Amino acid sequence: MKRAAVCTIGDEILIGQIVDTNSSAIARELNAIGVKVLRMVSISDDNTDIKQSLKSLLHDNDIVIVTGGLGPTKDDITKKALGELSGSRGTVFHQGQMEVIERILAHRGIEISDINRDQAMVPDTCEVMVNRKGTAPGMIFRFPAALYSHCPVLYSLPGVPYEAIGLLPAVMDDIRSHFALDSIHHKTIVTYGIAESTLAKMIEPWEDALPEDMHLAYLPNPLTGVKLRLSIYGGEREDEIRRIDAEFAKLGPVLGDAIYGEGDDTLQSVIARRMTAAGKTLAVAESCTGGRIASLITQIPGASKFFYGSVTSYDNSVKKNVLHVPTGIIASEGAVSRECAEAMALGVREALGTDYALSTTGIAGPDGGTPDKPVGTVWTAVAYPDTKNPGKTAVLSRMFRFNNDRSTNIDRFAGSALNLLRTVLLSEPGA
Amino acid sequence: MKRAAVCTIGDEILIGQIVDTNSSAIARELNAIGVKVLRMVSISDDNTDIKQSLKSLLHDNDIVIVTGGLGPTKDDITKKALGELSGSRGTVFHQGQMEVIERILAHRGIEISDINRDQAMVPDTCEVMVNRKGTAPGMIFRFPAALYSHCPVLYSLPGVPYEAIGLLPAVMDDIRSHFALDSIHHKTIVTYGIAESTLAKMIEPWEDALPEDMHLAYLPNPLTGVKLRLSIYGGEREDEIRRIDAEFAKLGPVLGDAIYGEGDDTLQSVIARRMTAAGKTLAVAESCTGGRIASLITQIPGASKFFYGSVTSYDNSVKKNVLHVPTGIIASEGAVSRECAEAMALGVREALGTDYALSTTGIAGPDGGTPDKPVGTVWTAVAYPDTKNPGKTAVLSRMFRFNNDRSTNIDRFAGSALNLLRTVLLSEPGA
Repeated sequence: MKRAAVCTIGDEILIGQIVDTNSSAIARELNAIGVKVLRMVSISDDNTDIKQSLKSLLHDNDIVIVTGGLGPTKDDITKKALGELSGSRGTVFHQGQMEVIERILAHRGIEISDINRDQAMVPDTCEVMVNRKGTAPGMIFRFPAALYSHCPVLYSLPGVPYEAIGLLPAVMDDIRSHFALDSIHHKTIVTYGIAESTLAKMIEPWEDALPEDMHLAYLPNPLTGVKLRLSIYGGEREDEIRRIDAEFAKLGPVLGDAIYGEGDDTLQSVIARRMTAAGKTLAVAESCTGGRIASLITQIPGASKFFYGSVTSYDNSVKKNVLHVPTGIIASEGAVSRECAEAMALGVREALGTDYALSTTGIAGPDGGTPDKPVGTVWTAVAYPDTKNPGKTAVLSRMFRFNNDRSTNIDRFAGSALNLLRTVLLSEPGA
Repeated sequence: MKRAAVCTIGDEILIGQIVDTNSSAIARELNAIGVKVLRMVSISDDNTDIKQSLKSLLHDNDIVIVTGGLGPTKDDITKKALGELSGSRGTVFHQGQMEVIERILAHRGIEISDINRDQAMVPDTCEVMVNRKGTAPGMIFRFPAALYSHCPVLYSLPGVPYEAIGLLPAVMDDIRSHFALDSIHHKTIVTYGIAESTLAKMIEPWEDALPEDMHLAYLPNPLTGVKLRLSIYGGEREDEIRRIDAEFAKLGPVLGDAIYGEGDDTLQSVIARRMTAAGKTLAVAESCTGGRIASLITQIPGASKFFYGSVTSYDNSVKKNVLHVPTGIIASEGAVSRECAEAMALGVREALGTDYALSTTGIAGPDGGTPDKPVGTVWTAVAYPDTKNPGKTAVLSRMFRFNNDRSTNIDRFAGSALNLLRTVLLSEPGA
C-alpha cells in the first residue's frame, strides 16, 4: 500500500493561531483512492526545518503533500526551500497562473503589485498545477531514486483551505496515474441520541463477532452524533463494501431509529433530503441556539427548496411580538420550558406559513441557570400537521440536559433539536 | 527555550474524519507561557507506532502533550502504550476520576458499565489529573534522564476538545512549576476590509524598517480579516510588548479604521463591547448568510445584553410577510439589490424594536447568479438612528463581491456585513 504524509507549514499553526483543516481534507481524499496516511506533521516557516523535515518525510513515504507557506506576503519561504530541496537552478514565470492572478484581482477591484507578480514565479524543477481559486500556484516535484532509493512525489498546495481543496482533484489524478495503488475500503454509519459508552455496550456482542480483517472505529461529535466506521484493507471494493454492509445490517435491530444515515450524512442533510422529496417546508425558532440551526441548514446548497427561514428570538420581546408566545407562559413557566418551546414552534409555523416548525429554548452558559434548570438544559419542540386530525396541528417536545462549554452546548442543543425533527419526519407518512 | 511537541493519536484524524482542533488550543497555551512548539504530529491508533513516535518526540523535546486515544470504546489503546513506554507494572484504580464518571453518567441518566469503570484505571507510573468534564483521566508521566539524557515530561489528555481544554490549566501549572521557562512575546492586531496582498504593499516600508528581532506574520481569515502578528523571543515581557506596541502604533496612520482590535478580538466581539457599553440594541435580517451572523453574535457569552434577535428570511415570502419588504422591490430590483437589503434592515429594526439593524441578501452559490449579479455578490445594509435628524432613521448599504465556495462566501458575506455595522458604530457618537 502506498504511504503518504501530509505536512503543513506555518508558524501560525504552531503558535495555534489557526486550526489546520487542510490535512483532514487531504487525508480523506487519499484514503478514498487507497493511499494510507501514516503521519501528519506541522512545521515552522523555517528554511532549514522545512528542508530537513521534508527530506525525512520523502524518505519514509511515497507521497508527501505540503500545504501552506505560499501566500503573497513576506513570511512565506516554502517556495525557496522547495527549490533548494529539488536542486532548482532558478525560478521561471508561469503565464497560466499569472492570468488567474490578473482575473482574481480585477474581479475584486485590486491593482496588481510586484508581490502578486512574484506569485507566478516557480522553481524550474516543478510542474505547475494552476490554482484557479487563488493567486499561489500548486506545484509537483518528482524526486529521482538516486536521492531516496525510491521515487517519491511532493505536491505543494496553497494554505488557504478552499484553494488547497480546489487543487485536490488534480493531485489525486496525478497520484492515480503515477502510482499503482492498492485498495482500502471504509464505510461509515451515523447514529444520534445514544452516548458513546452506552452504544459501545449495546453493540459489544456484534463487535466481538466481527471478522478479523474488519476494523471498527467510533467517531463522536456533538452535532452529528456517534459515527461507526468499518474498514478493510485490500480486496475488491464491491466485495468488501458488500461484506461491510452485511455487518452493518445486523445493527439495525440493535440500534433502530438511532441510525440515521451513512457516510457524510448529517441530521440536516437527511432532513433536507426528506423534506425536499416530500415537498414540505420548514421554519425554525431559535433562542439558545441563536441561529446555529438555521446556519447549519443553509450550509446545504439548495436549502431554499424547503427552508423558508427562521426567527432568532433571543430577547423575550421577540418571543412575544414576533412569535406571539403568550406573556403568561413566560411569566409562569419561564422562557426555558416545555410550554414556551411549544408556543415558539407554533408561533414561527404560523408567522412563516410552513408545514413543519422546530424550536429551541435553553441555557447555553456559562452564566445563568437555576437548580431546576441548570446550564446545559434545553427544551425543543416540533409543530407539524396532525395526520390523524386533518386541519389540526400536533406538537412534540422534549427536554435534554448536557454538561459542556457554551459552544458545545449550543451544538448539542442544535443536534438534539434536529434529531427530534428527524424522528417526527420518520413517523409521518407524508414527509 | 523549552521545546514542546503536540501529538494527536487516532486513525479518525489520519483518515480525515475529524479535524484536530486540540493541537492549536494547546499550542496557544504553551506559547503564552514561553514554551516553543517545534512540531505537531498526528499518528495512528497503533501500539508500535505510538511507542516509537513518542520515544522520538521525548528524545527531541522537553515537553510532549498527547491528546486522544482515551475514549471509552475499544479502538483506544493509548493507555496501554503509555504504560509500556513508562515501564508500568500494571494499572491502578483512581477514585477521584471514578467519582466524576459516576456524576456525569447520573446527570445524563446513563447506567454505569464495565467500560466506564475501566476508564478510572491508569498505569501505576502516572500521576492523574482528574478530568471533571469527561470520563477519561488526564495523566502525567515523568521520564528519568537515564532514558533520554534529559528529563522530559509527557502529558496525556482525552481527545474530546472541551475535555482536553479543561485540563490545560493543570498542565500549564505543572509545566511552570517543573521547568525554568524563557519568554516569548506575541501581539496581534486585527484588520478588516483590505486584501492580504494590498495590505502587504501598503505596509511594506513599515515592515522593512522593523527591528531585526521582531518577526511579522500575516494571518488571513474570511471571517476576521487579516491579522498581523509581531513576535519577539526573550527579554522582559513588559518591555517587549511596549516595543511591539510602538511599532503597531505607526500603522494607525497607514491603515486607519481598517484596524479594529487586537489579540482575539473579532468583528462581533468589538461590536458587542461597543453596543453593550452604549446600551444600544441590535436586530439582524439574513438572507444568504442564513443565520450565520446571528450564530456568530450569540457565540459571545452575554450577547443577550444587546442582541434582540434575527429573522432569517430565506424565502421571499418571509421578506414580505415578516420583514414587510415591499413586493414591488423584489419584483423590480430583485431580492439581491440595494433596495431589498435596505428594506430588510428597516423591516427587522421595526419588527424587533431595536436601535440598530443589519441585513444581508446575496448569492452564496454554487448555483444561481446572473451576469449582472454573479455568485459571490452580496448587498448588506445597516439601519440606525439618524443623529443629524432626530427621530429619523438612516440607512447605509454596500455591495461586495467574492469568488469563493459556498461556505467561504457565507463567511465573507457575514464578515463584510459585521464590518459595515462596525464602521457605522465608529462614526456614531452615541454608540
